[in-house]
This record gives sequence, structure tokens and C-alpha cells, in this order.
Amino acid sequence: MNGDPVNVREFEALARAALDPVFYDYFASGAQDEVTVHANEEAFRRLCLVPRVLRGLPQPRLGVSVLGQETAMPVLLSPTAFHKLAHPEGELATARAAAEAGVIVIAAMLATVAIEDMAAEARKADPEARLWFQLYVQPDLGFTESLVRRAEAAGCAALVVTVDSPALGRNERGDRNGFHDLPPGIRCENMRDPGDVRQVVLSPEISWRHLTWLRGITTLPIVLKGVLHPEDARLAVRHGVDGLIVSNHGGRQLDGTPAAVDRLPVIADAVAGEIALLVDGGVRRGTDVVKALALGAQAVGIGRPALWGLAAAGQEGVARVLDLLRRELVNALTLCGCETPRDLVEVTRW
Amino acid sequence: MNGDPVNVREFEALARAALDPVFYDYFASGAQDEVTVHANEEAFRRLCLVPRVLRGLPQPRLGVSVLGQETAMPVLLSPTAFHKLAHPEGELATARAAAEAGVIVIAAMLATVAIEDMAAEARKADPEARLWFQLYVQPDLGFTESLVRRAEAAGCAALVVTVDSPALGRNERGDRNGFHDLPPGIRCENMRDPGDVRQVVLSPEISWRHLTWLRGITTLPIVLKGVLHPEDARLAVRHGVDGLIVSNHGGRQLDGTPAAVDRLPVIADAVAGEIALLVDGGVRRGTDVVKALALGAQAVGIGRPALWGLAAAGQEGVARVLDLLRRELVNALTLCGCETPRDLVEVTRW
Amino acid sequence: MNGDPVNVREFEALARAALDPVFYDYFASGAQDEVTVHANEEAFRRLCLVPRVLRGLPQPRLGVSVLGQETAMPVLLSPTAFHKLAHPEGELATARAAAEAGVIVIAAMLATVAIEDMAAEARKADPEARLWFQLYVQPDLGFTESLVRRAEAAGCAALVVTVDSPALGRNERGDRNGFHDLPPGIRCENMRDPGDVRQVVLSPEISWRHLTWLRGITTLPIVLKGVLHPEDARLAVRHGVDGLIVSNHGGRQLDGTPAAVDRLPVIADAVAGEIALLVDGGVRRGTDVVKALALGAQAVGIGRPALWGLAAAGQEGVARVLDLLRRELVNALTLCGCETPRDLVEVTRW
Amino acid sequence: MNGDPVNVREFEALARAALDPVFYDYFASGAQDEVTVHANEEAFRRLCLVPRVLRGLPQPRLGVSVLGQETAMPVLLSPTAFHKLAHPEGELATARAAAEAGVIVIAAMLATVAIEDMAAEARKADPEARLWFQLYVQPDLGFTESLVRRAEAAGCAALVVTVDSPALGRNERGDRNGFHDLPPGIRCENMRDPGDVRQVVLSPEISWRHLTWLRGITTLPIVLKGVLHPEDARLAVRHGVDGLIVSNHGGRQLDGTPAAVDRLPVIADAVAGEIALLVDGGVRRGTDVVKALALGAQAVGIGRPALWGLAAAGQEGVARVLDLLRRELVNALTLCGCETPRDLVEVTRW
Repeated sequence: MNGDPVNVREFEALARAALDPVFYDYFASGAQDEVTVHANEEAFRRLCLVPRVLRGLPQPRLGVSVLGQETAMPVLLSPTAFHKLAHPEGELATARAAAEAGVIVIAAMLATVAIEDMAAEARKADPEARLWFQLYVQPDLGFTESLVRRAEAAGCAALVVTVDSPALGRNERGDRNGFHDLPPGIRCENMRDPGDVRQVVLSPEISWRHLTWLRGITTLPIVLKGVLHPEDARLAVRHGVDGLIVSNHGGRQLDGTPAAVDRLPVIADAVAGEIALLVDGGVRRGTDVVKALALGAQAVGIGRPALWGLAAAGQEGVARVLDLLRRELVNALTLCGCETPRDLVEVTRW
Repeated sequence: MNGDPVNVREFEALARAALDPVFYDYFASGAQDEVTVHANEEAFRRLCLVPRVLRGLPQPRLGVSVLGQETAMPVLLSPTAFHKLAHPEGELATARAAAEAGVIVIAAMLATVAIEDMAAEARKADPEARLWFQLYVQPDLGFTESLVRRAEAAGCAALVVTVDSPALGRNERGDRNGFHDLPPGIRCENMRDPGDVRQVVLSPEISWRHLTWLRGITTLPIVLKGVLHPEDARLAVRHGVDGLIVSNHGGRQLDGTPAAVDRLPVIADAVAGEIALLVDGGVRRGTDVVKALALGAQAVGIGRPALWGLAAAGQEGVARVLDLLRRELVNALTLCGCETPRDLVEVTRW
Repeated sequence: MNGDPVNVREFEALARAALDPVFYDYFASGAQDEVTVHANEEAFRRLCLVPRVLRGLPQPRLGVSVLGQETAMPVLLSPTAFHKLAHPEGELATARAAAEAGVIVIAAMLATVAIEDMAAEARKADPEARLWFQLYVQPDLGFTESLVRRAEAAGCAALVVTVDSPALGRNERGDRNGFHDLPPGIRCENMRDPGDVRQVVLSPEISWRHLTWLRGITTLPIVLKGVLHPEDARLAVRHGVDGLIVSNHGGRQLDGTPAAVDRLPVIADAVAGEIALLVDGGVRRGTDVVKALALGAQAVGIGRPALWGLAAAGQEGVARVLDLLRRELVNALTLCGCETPRDLVEVTRW
Repeated sequence: MNGDPVNVREFEALARAALDPVFYDYFASGAQDEVTVHANEEAFRRLCLVPRVLRGLPQPRLGVSVLGQETAMPVLLSPTAFHKLAHPEGELATARAAAEAGVIVIAAMLATVAIEDMAAEARKADPEARLWFQLYVQPDLGFTESLVRRAEAAGCAALVVTVDSPALGRNERGDRNGFHDLPPGIRCENMRDPGDVRQVVLSPEISWRHLTWLRGITTLPIVLKGVLHPEDARLAVRHGVDGLIVSNHGGRQLDGTPAAVDRLPVIADAVAGEIALLVDGGVRRGTDVVKALALGAQAVGIGRPALWGLAAAGQEGVARVLDLLRRELVNALTLCGCETPRDLVEVTRW
């Protein structure tokens, strides 16, 4: 692969060099002034870790169980759309890299590879490959149910319902670039119905009633992605949701939301350990993972870093990104005096 | 029109390119070090919105009622002087754009088009056009009363009394540019008395007694613009004032005043809902509008953004600025989980 | 004079252009990293003024009484050394400008013009010229007393004892420039004893006992300059001191002291109005004066701004600086709704 | 020597000019994003000193006793590795400079000169030379004990056990430079066993039990270096440790730890004066020393500054760095109104 990056951020430069600038902008950009995009990273920078010493421990073991599924480390691939814009193999490459690394990948509803193909490819790499499916609940419940059934049939172990998108965020880089359609030959393969490709519908009418309906049609664990308010976290618990991803959609939806990691304490307090708690947005370092875990998350998702790896070097690039994070996480936990990701570390602010 | 701006701030560059630098500086500048000019925008940037999810709502309806007047959205045009410096059609273009957008325009006493002509032009676009009149109370009460009568006769629905100007703020860009007089052919048409054009008098002697006098000579609602101290807000309520605009005059009067939006909570607390509460200064985004409403305003005023639109493309430019804000506001409310501008959103700080 | 500055800071550029870089550095520099030099200005920038409206007042009257002496405005010239490095007329020009402006000038012990000559020159401009004398108490009490007698004889109305200089601060610009001696023909004229010029002695042995001695040998009011700690302010009251100047010596002594204006509240609290309270360091604007008064000072001192004026244009330059501050102060007080410098203004922070 | 630096930081530029860039990077760099490297200096900058006045004191005396050992000032040389990368004489030059200055030098286990040679060289300069020995406890306790015996035999007066290194921090500058081995002819002379040079082993298995073992085999005072958490400070007291160095290893181990000086108050509170308390990381100024002492340290260590001096001018460079700090410390204490480093100074924040 190109160069030999020593950290995850160095993959961003490689991705920028490799990609059509319009596609690079699509992945890099956020809503409007991108205040929240930058806040996500900045919030991690402001947090400090206070290590413990002389604990007499073996090398850290990174494996954790998330919603009953064992994963090699508390880092998963958050759903991101259109991987074929980053690399011709698209989500197939991503899925193989995740499977080989033993981490959960959340397949995006707007993937450019069908969930069945992603699942098959992942299973070739590892029969126990961990695949979840991300869903925008569509007003057409019949079509929504068909997506759920496909995800179940493909062996997805959880449904991740994105709830921060009652409308599309305003992406101004996209507007300036005039980027509104996928290039020829790239399609949202999960949106075929059956021959034509549907447009995704983002509607403010989607509500807790739809969640109740979804809860009734599937036994898969349901995770809500995009919760930032503790009252919504409490409502999620009451509606039988199995987990939350505290997220601002990588700063791509409402510009000016708080950094995701800064919302963890209040959300952790609201769910009080009753359901699984994840977070994504701004994770670039093993120390970021430790900070998120210290604030109450069981695992963290990465979005853009995996796309940078994919753009830079396909499957190998995603694998390198995951391996860098894994090695950094081992180092960070060791230096903090932890044996596992569940050990508590004290976090302060500058 | 020139280019195709994707947000309000992009109009500023167009305005700069279109205008004589001396006139651009006049509109852009603030008092002295312009600390307050920048603070107004920065204060919005520091505020975060915490959205709610899964509320199951229709598309937001933006209409609100301000002082009994229905407006298409909670954004109005704050009074700004000398529109003919920005565009040959001056306030006529501004008035038409506001009328067509269904928003309130506050005609400036120092307009370069007479209030009667502005009103007539607005009514051509919309017979229900919403026009208010801004007033510096003049020590010559007879002349002041004549202005009130002209505003009443022109169908203005409220009087906006600017109270932050017991003297003129010190504009150093203007001093450096030697800009002290309007160019030939441009006059303050509201200041004709009857043939000659008066100079405006800004005097520290104007007081609550003048307010009492004004309250006695007109039945129009009276709004005070430029209140930042809660004690003055309480005095306003006691003097029968109908509304306040929390404002630091766009940073053009006393440099070093707090950002207007940062004064909203304490002023909202002081008026306790008894009178209408507006704010202006630094609004550039739909999310800024939501933040101001969340802190207690019923509507927000914009000043420079309308002038940028006017300078860039006349009526069409003002219309585009208003339309961008309208679309951003719809998007922001949707993403916050709101159906109307009156729905409460939680605001935090980074 | 050169150019036509619209504010005090613009005189700094003129001074830099006019002066030998070594002398410019001498005036501009502070101790070590100059953190405190910048903090003094920055502290004013962080403070906000919350104006009041509709107070119905006449134009502000700026005159105040400080230690029983009427001054045209609450701004005085803090003592600064070596004015002949800035302009050939040295302290004579400064004294004339201050006298004509009706403000107090504190003659420096390290002036390059004798106190008798400064006083005579000031009296030519205004028989009521206000002159104070600054003193480093010297271990040689006989010589110190002779300085006091000269100051008394010259009609100085107060003694300002600098107490923040038990040693000389470490000036690294001076070290790099190799600036350790005054150029030929420029001498500390107050240090002649009688024919030779003494070196000033800065000693940590100077103590409250010396203050008691000084209190016993003169009836002049005694002001301590350089107090930052409230316990020292209380000790000053107990030792019969008549006033304090809260000051960090313009950041020239101990680098890393707090900004002077930030120490005002705690010192004002400690002296509880029993003695006069002044402040210097970082004042560049009329609004800075208002902020200092709002925090408890009766007047403020300026140091470098007067030197910039002196370097740029001699007496006329100092006069322009004072006139700019006077006009800005009138404007700031008017915009704050004040009639006099004693009216209270609310101060907040960003 | 090169140039004539007026402060410690100016030696950094000289060191950069003198060194192979790869070696310069080795000394300058920290872990990962070097957030903690910069935080160490920034934390000192944010602290303010509030001086006292008129105390009537003699010149400050800098000598303090640390762990029963008299030192000329409360500044010591923290252990740093590989001095021969900075200068051909390596630790011999450092040891002579420290001995002549009368300060404690902590010999690094990873020195490029054997402890016996360092001690002999130091004793040539001063028979009372103060030498401590730094130790990474090795899983091979026999080898560890042999190091302790060598340190004892060489006359080291204390053992400094580094406890923040259960693994090596991730140095990305080193990775990019491909710097993984010492150049030919430079070896870790303390690691000879007896003919071969061992690799240092950093292991998370080292624990308080190893400390108990160490406590049992030597009567030397034991100091733990790298404690940041108050609970570990309390554990240290309970395990019979004699002192702590609050340190984040100059930002070279876990990136994102707090600045060392910011942890002093909580650690000082935890140890409650029962054992010696030192700090290192970011000290560049005499005022930094005063700030650290004010927050509870008995002395401070410097790391990079001594290496800059060594790289710039060998023994003479180290001596100059120590002399600059000594002179700055005298000046800072005098200006704060202190007679000794034990006098308390009030510290605030901007």
C-alpha cells in the first residue's frame, strides 16, 4: 500500500491523494460550518487520562462482548454510505477487513454492495463474522420490513436504527461541488425493490410508534444511533431498545450539536447500565477509545478512519487502520494500568 | 445574480466585490476594535443545540405572530441606514423582498427612501406587507411627532425606538476612510422638514420621560431596541413598552458590550413573558435562529446579511438571503425535533 | 505631526518608526516572556460593559478629585523613565502636555529632566499643574530624604513609592540589544548628588519600616505603586498610606503576575474605600478606563501610550494621546448612560 | 560556546542546530500527538504569581534539603537517556556540570556512561557531588539487584524508580525517522551483564510487590517517578516510599495525561507532607520553579533543558542552563518577596 502511516490521521492524507476531490469532500464534509465535525475531535483532545501505576498486570486483553457478541476489541465500524466511491471493491473490502480483525461492522442501508453479498464475503474471511445492519425506518413499512428480513436472512446480529435524520443535513461542500447523484454503475444495492433502486426517504414523521412496530416484527437486538438527549435515552429504555449509539452522525446532520463524547456522561447516567451504550464521532486514537470507555461507553464506532483506509489501500488499508487502533489501544490500556477495556480510568479536563 | 451562494456568509464576499470599499466598510464596520462585532457571531458559535428524536412530526411551520402581526418566519429585517449605498434601488428593493417573503421589515429613520414610498412599494408586492418604523427620538418633539404621524399614515404597525444611541459610536474605519457625508443624490428622505434635510440628533438627554410622551401620542405598539440590562427591561415593562429588541446595534455603538444573544436569558427572565422579546446581532444561520428562540426570543432580526444580499443582487439578493435562512430554519427545526419555532430546544455550551 | 492616528494604539506604530529600535524595545518590552505585558491588555478585552439606557443626562463631566486634587479626567500619567530616549525634550514635553490637559503627571525618579525643571515647565503651561513624584526608597535614607525635599520644594502634591522593585526585572530584549547605559548627554537628573549621578539601588531590604520612616518625614500624601496582594493593601492602610496603584509595573518586573485590572476587585474589597485606589497597565481605550472605574478604581494611569505619543510627536503627541482618551471616555460614559466617572457601570466577562 | 543565550529556551535552537535531526527529534519528541508535551509548558504559563511587597529581606538563599541531601537550589536534573547522542562526552559532561553547580543529578539507567564512571567524574568536580540513580525495575530481579548494588557502590544517595513505563510510549517521530538503535560505539553502559548489553524490559507485571522487594534489599531512599494519581501517592506512602516525582515522563509515555504541575495540588494533598514531593515536566523558567514550589513541591526536575545545554556546548552548556535558572530563581523569589524557596507564594490562574 501507499507509504507507511504511523497513525490513523496519516491515512486521511493518503485518502485525499487517492480520491476524486468531490468524493473526498463527500466523506470529509459535515453540515454547514462543520463546527460539530471539528468539535468531535476537539472534545477528545480536551479530555485527560490519569494513569495508575504498579498494578502488576498481564498484557491487556482487548476482547469485549457487545449485545452478547464477542468482538476482538471495543472498536466497531459505524455505518457509512457509498464505499464504492472510496474503492472499487466497496463494502466487500470493508467487510473482509472487519471480519479478519474480528470486529463488528455495521452495514449501511445506503451501502453500494447488497447486504447479502457483504455477509457472504465477510463469512468467507471468518464464518463467525460480526455484521449488524443500519436502517433508516422508511414510511413505507412494507419496504422497511423487507429490509429487516434481508438483514435477518443475511445473519446480521443487530439492527441499528438511525434516529438523527428526520431530514438530510445541509452539506455545503456537496452543494458547491454539485454532487447530488452517484456515478454510473454505483447504486444503493439494498434499496432495490426488486429491480428499481428506491430513493431513501428521511421523514420527521418517524416516531417511537415506528420503533414499537419494529420491536414487534423482529427479535434482533435494536440499537438507536444518534441519541444525544438523556430524555430520549430514557424513552429508548422504555421502548425496549437494546442499545444506544451516542452520535451526532459525524457532524453531518445538525451543525452545532455538542461533541458526541461530551454527551456520554449524561446519557450513561440516564440509561444507568440497563442497555448497551456506544459512541461514535471523532475517534482517531487508542487513547480516544479509553476516554470514551472511561465515560461510560462499552465500545466506540469509527466512521471516516475506515473510509480513509479503504480509499488509501482497500481491504489492506481498513485492516491497517484497525490494527493501528488495536495496537494503540493495547499501549494506552497498559500505560493506564488496565488489564481490560472494562477497567476504569479517571478522566479529567485540561 | 452573481454566483450561487450556498449560505448567507457567502453573500458577504459578493457584497465586498460589488461595493465601493468605503461603503463596504461602512456596513461591515463596528465601533473601535470591533470586539463586539465579532463577539456577536462568536456567541452563537459557542452555543450548542441538543436535538430530540423520533417525535413523529409534520414538516415545521415557520409562521409566528409578533406583536399581533403574522409573519412567515421568526426572522425580520432590523433597521439599517442608507440602503442606496448598497444598491441604487435602496430600501425599495429591500421592502419588496421582505413583502414577498412575508417578513417584517423595520424601516430605518435614516433610510434613503421615504417611508411613504417604501410602504407603497411593499404594498405593491403584498397588500398585507409588514412594515415597522424605527425612530431616534429627537429633542425637537414636534419633528419627532411628525415622523410618528408619517409612519402611522404609511401603515407602519409598530414603532421601534433605538435607545442605545445617546451619542454616535466611534467608527474608526469611517474616520480612516474620511467617510462623513452621503454621496450626491442620496439623502435621508425621512429627515426632510419639509424641503431641507435635517441632521439626526443623538442626545444623552433622551429619557424615559420621552418614552412616556411617545406612549401618549400614539397607539402603535412601541418596541425598544438596544436594551442589554435587565433593570432597563423592567423599566420598559413599567413604562408600557410592548416589546424589546436585545441588541448592541451590531457592535456599532459601545465596543465591549456583551454579545446580544448572551444577554437574552437575563432579559427574558426580567420581562417574564410580559412583553415581546426579540434579538439581533450575529444571526447568520438557521441554527442561530433556533438558538435565539431557545433562549427566549420570539423572533430575531438580521442587519448586515440583508445588506449583503442587497449589495450583491438588489431585491433578488435580499430574497435569496431570506430564502436561505428560511430553508435553514426548516432544516434546523426538523433536525431538532420541532414542529414550530415555539417548541423548546435545549441549549448548552461547548 | 506624523499621520493622523484615530486611536492610541496607532501611536505605537508611529513610535516604532520614529525611535532607535533599541530604545523602542526598551519602552515596549517587559520581563522575560512578556506574558504579563500581554495579559494587561487582554484582561481589559475580556471584560464587557453592560450599558444603561434612557437616563436623560447632560454630556458627561470627566473631572474627578484624586487625593484632594482636581484633575480634568480620571486618567493620569504613570511614571516612566528616560523620556529623552523618546524625544529630545524629554519630560519637559510630557509635563507641558499633561499640564495643558489638566491631568496629573507622576514624575519618575529616573527622569532625564530634573524635577525642578519639570515643575517649572508644567507651571508655565498651567500654574495649577498637577505633579506627583515617584520614588524608589533608597537604602541611603539621607539621599532619599533629599529627594523628598526636592519634590516638596518643586510643589509635587503626592509621593508615589514604587514597591514592586526589590530587584530589577529581567529584561531580555535589553540583554539581547546590549542596552545597559544611557547614551551620552542623557542622565537621571534627579539622581545628582550633588554633582555626580548616583545609580539607583533596588533592594529587597526596603520594608514597611521604611514606609513608617517616610510617613514621619513628610506631610505629602503617600501612594504605594505595585500592590497586587490584598494583604499588602490592608498593611498599607494600617501604615497610614493614602492611596494605592494596583500595578504590575507594566509587566516589566515579575513576569507571570496577574493582569493589574484583574486584581482590582480583591484589592478594592481589601481597602474598602478607606484610601484612594488607582490602577495602571494595559489601558488603551476610553472603555478600558470605564472598566477600571467600574471595578473600583478612582483613576487609571497610562504608561507606554504617553511614551508613544512623545516619541511620535513630542508634546503634541502626548497631547493627542490624552485627547483621544478624553474623547473616547466621553463617548464611552455617554453610551453607558453615565454622567460622571463615578457613576457605576456593570461589568461582565465574555 | 555558540552565541549567548539569555534564557533556557534559546538553548533549544542551539541544540537543534548542533544535532543530527534524528537525535534532535528523539530528545524533543513526545508520545503520539505530543499534546502532553505542550501541556506541560502551557500549564506553567496559565499559572500566575501574586507577589508580596516591602518585606525587608536579605537576598534569597536558594539551598534546600531534599531527602536529607543539601542542594544548591531546588532544581535537579531528571534522568534522561543517551546523553552521548547529544554530546561525545555524554553523561560525564552532565555530571561535572551538576556537581560544580551543587545540584542533584539523577543518573539514568539508560545512560551511555556507566554509573561508576559518572560518579567518579562528578566526585572529581566535587567530592560531595549529589548523585541519584534511576531504575526501571526489571523482571529479572537478580539483574535489578545488581544495578542497585552498583548504584550503592557508586555512592548514589537515592534510587528513583520510574513507574510510568509498563510499556514504551509510542514515539511517532522515531517511527518516521526509523530511529530504533543507538549508533555504533554508543551503548547503555549500565546494562552490561557483564559483557553483553541487555535490552531494557518494560513490563506491566511490575507491581507494588516489586517495590516491597526493593525496599527490603536496600536502605537507600526510594523515590517513585511518574505518579499522577493521588491513590497511587497514598499507596506509595504505605509502601515505605521516601518521595515522589509527579511526572508524565515529559509527555513521552501516555499522550493525553494532564500537565504534571497541574497534578501537584491533589498529590500534595494526598501525601500530606509525609514524604518528599518533586515534580518535573515543562520547567523552563525560574518563575516555573516558584510556581511548582508554591503548589507543594520541594524541588523540580528539568529534563530537556539540560540536554539542550549539553548539545549546544557540553558541560559548559549544562552549566549555563543551570546558572540561568539559578539567576532567574533568585530574581523571581526576590520579586515575590521571598527569602527562601520554602516561603509561600500565592498562585492563581488567568
